[in-house]
Amino acid sequence: MARIVMKFGGTSVADIDRIKAVAARVKKEHDSGNQVAVVVSAMAGVTNQLVDYVTKVSRLYDAREYDVVVATGEQVTSGLLALALQELGVNARSWLGWQIPIATDSQHGKARITEIASGELIARLDRGEVLVVPGFQGLAPDNRVTTLGRGGSDTSAVAVAAALKADRCDIYTDVDGVYTTDPRIVTKARKLDKISYEEMLELASVGAKVLQTRSVEMAMRHRVRVQVLSSFMDQPGTLVVDEDEIVEQELVSGIAYSKDEAKITLVKVADRPGVSASIFGPLADASVNVDMIVQSVSADGKATDVSFTVSKGDLDRAVAIVEKKRQDLGFAQILSDSNVAKVSVIGLGMRSHAGIAARMFQALAERSINILAISTSEIKISVLIGEEYTELALRALHTAYNLDKDD
Amino acid sequence: MARIVMKFGGTSVADIDRIKAVAARVKKEHDSGNQVAVVVSAMAGVTNQLVDYVTKVSRLYDAREYDVVVATGEQVTSGLLALALQELGVNARSWLGWQIPIATDSQHGKARITEIASGELIARLDRGEVLVVPGFQGLAPDNRVTTLGRGGSDTSAVAVAAALKADRCDIYTDVDGVYTTDPRIVTKARKLDKISYEEMLELASVGAKVLQTRSVEMAMRHRVRVQVLSSFMDQPGTLVVDEDEIVEQELVSGIAYSKDEAKITLVKVADRPGVSASIFGPLADASVNVDMIVQSVSADGKATDVSFTVSKGDLDRAVAIVEKKRQDLGFAQILSDSNVAKVSVIGLGMRSHAGIAARMFQALAERSINILAISTSEIKISVLIGEEYTELALRALHTAYNLDKDD
Repeated sequence: MARIVMKFGGTSVADIDRIKAVAARVKKEHDSGNQVAVVVSAMAGVTNQLVDYVTKVSRLYDAREYDVVVATGEQVTSGLLALALQELGVNARSWLGWQIPIATDSQHGKARITEIASGELIARLDRGEVLVVPGFQGLAPDNRVTTLGRGGSDTSAVAVAAALKADRCDIYTDVDGVYTTDPRIVTKARKLDKISYEEMLELASVGAKVLQTRSVEMAMRHRVRVQVLSSFMDQPGTLVVDEDEIVEQELVSGIAYSKDEAKITLVKVADRPGVSASIFGPLADASVNVDMIVQSVSADGKATDVSFTVSKGDLDRAVAIVEKKRQDLGFAQILSDSNVAKVSVIGLGMRSHAGIAARMFQALAERSINILAISTSEIKISVLIGEEYTELALRALHTAYNLDKDD
Repeated sequence: MARIVMKFGGTSVADIDRIKAVAARVKKEHDSGNQVAVVVSAMAGVTNQLVDYVTKVSRLYDAREYDVVVATGEQVTSGLLALALQELGVNARSWLGWQIPIATDSQHGKARITEIASGELIARLDRGEVLVVPGFQGLAPDNRVTTLGRGGSDTSAVAVAAALKADRCDIYTDVDGVYTTDPRIVTKARKLDKISYEEMLELASVGAKVLQTRSVEMAMRHRVRVQVLSSFMDQPGTLVVDEDEIVEQELVSGIAYSKDEAKITLVKVADRPGVSASIFGPLADASVNVDMIVQSVSADGKATDVSFTVSKGDLDRAVAIVEKKRQDLGFAQILSDSNVAKVSVIGLGMRSHAGIAARMFQALAERSINILAISTSEIKISVLIGEEYTELALRALHTAYNLDKDD
């Protein structure tokens, strides 16, 4: 017997027929002798509708009332799924965030879970009851409803799994697992059986939208074994686990990309201490997220060029903010380019094997793809390239690291 | 300074623009120096949609999960109205049923309010805050969500007004008050300035759908002054108050009708003790509501005819139930007629004035309208007539009791 948390996203519970299909899948898990807690999102489209109501009423809304409104989507699904399970003869009931409670801090709209009271829930599981928990919602210290931010239901599921000491947290979604790269671009992409938390985190942070970053962080912290699998197919997905569980570690596990990048270059910035702070301080204050930063070596010790990337949506704001500082920074020119993309190679193997970066640069050079910027972490190398080379680069790297599936 | 509860129904909060209009009206009341608590229904159509989901998932649904699902409609409106009020600079927040709490019994789907914790709410009112409370919902002793049954938001409003010791409970609706009779039928119908609880109860029970019967009962019990008024017009409505507040009491206050009636007649029922129990016991067991009952005087002491009315929707079931008892009851024949209507004359004045019934019978006789059955209460006389005479009867009675407005 195992204790399993099953999480179903918005497309999996998009209408009554799909909710019934989810109930059938939960019943199957329960019938096989497992203890089951289910975490559900709002029906697809519902949260957007509710957010739209809020923003139409109030542009600068009170996040506490926003939470009251948008938390209802998951509440509806949890009641309906409990009913659908009962209809199949399964002893199920809904457990709302405030009933459990799922305690959070008071950052409404993007709250963090602080504690989940698990005693009663575990007692119910031991009696064979199926728990249905609305994702995304919690309870602030002052007894008001909180939500965890968009995509927060993954985080809810992992947190519930941690609190219940579940053997596994199955995240049902509209893809059937984690791939070596985007299979829509690289037809030879392979589904991974297992991937480590660290790699999954890097993948999530560079745009692979399979799991929300926060949920992976939480899984890693509490050592929750997460499985990503399809709610529309009946086959195993990808397990996200501790690296110790991965026997044969590949050098590189996956290649991710993001086209949501834009590059800003400040030409001839005065080369003196504090200049970086003068550039990036005001951007941080305005919540503009800066990713890659490249500073050229100053030839004459007087001026240097500084390039950095932001998301495309932040480009205009970032340029305006920096432009205001022209006097301080004394740069000659500001250039921006939104036709760029970031391609990242990710693998735990990098920690112990040399030459991985070199292989990347060589593969790109062979296709005459120019590298505009480079950034690295312990298990990731990212390069900025022209956006039109994205697909070419992905295919070249996928082959260079021997990730292509046999066929 | 007064303390006012304002209640807005589904059509008054049907979309974002109307919610903003409600906010403006609440602000006006608050700006005039009054303390204000607002009770809101779900946006028009939302509750029906949610009930539809539930019944599609499960025909014989668990009422506890039904409540989890349908209570969300009012939660959404309360959050949105709080936001709309804040947008106008009013210090407002939502107070959900479980937060206050609005304690109820555990009859899910039709719960009764047992207590409303008012201390914190009154403190907030005293600080000038506007409270926004979702109607229709409460909290059962086991910490689960309850709802009060369809139309329960009126009851919520009156209960909140009683708990807050409010000076008045204003029920905003799509009519502008209580009329002497249906103004769509009788153009000379007058809007009443005041009506007593007892008369309002009788009106509600015979089909005038202005206020839910339970809310009037609760208002009467706690002596809450209720005003029915239009959310689309800026003028006073009708006050529902203790009869002591009504200085000039008319003999008859209103004339109501219901076309949702059907008559069943059992011909030649054995005239022996216990026969009524044999007829009406099984109907009660099946939750068929029997209204008027007429038993003809037995001519020979052996057999009698029994007629009674049920709502049109219950007619087929009622006939089937009685048919099963044919052996026991030994009746010769069962007749049913759904082309009947009930017309009722209501007035506190009846208690002290004779001749009111006689005037009714005479007015109907003058128009050759045949009376099929009669029932009376202390302040009401109802007659059953052919459905096609309903409008004629209403006009005749309205004139006979001098209710026509001058023009």
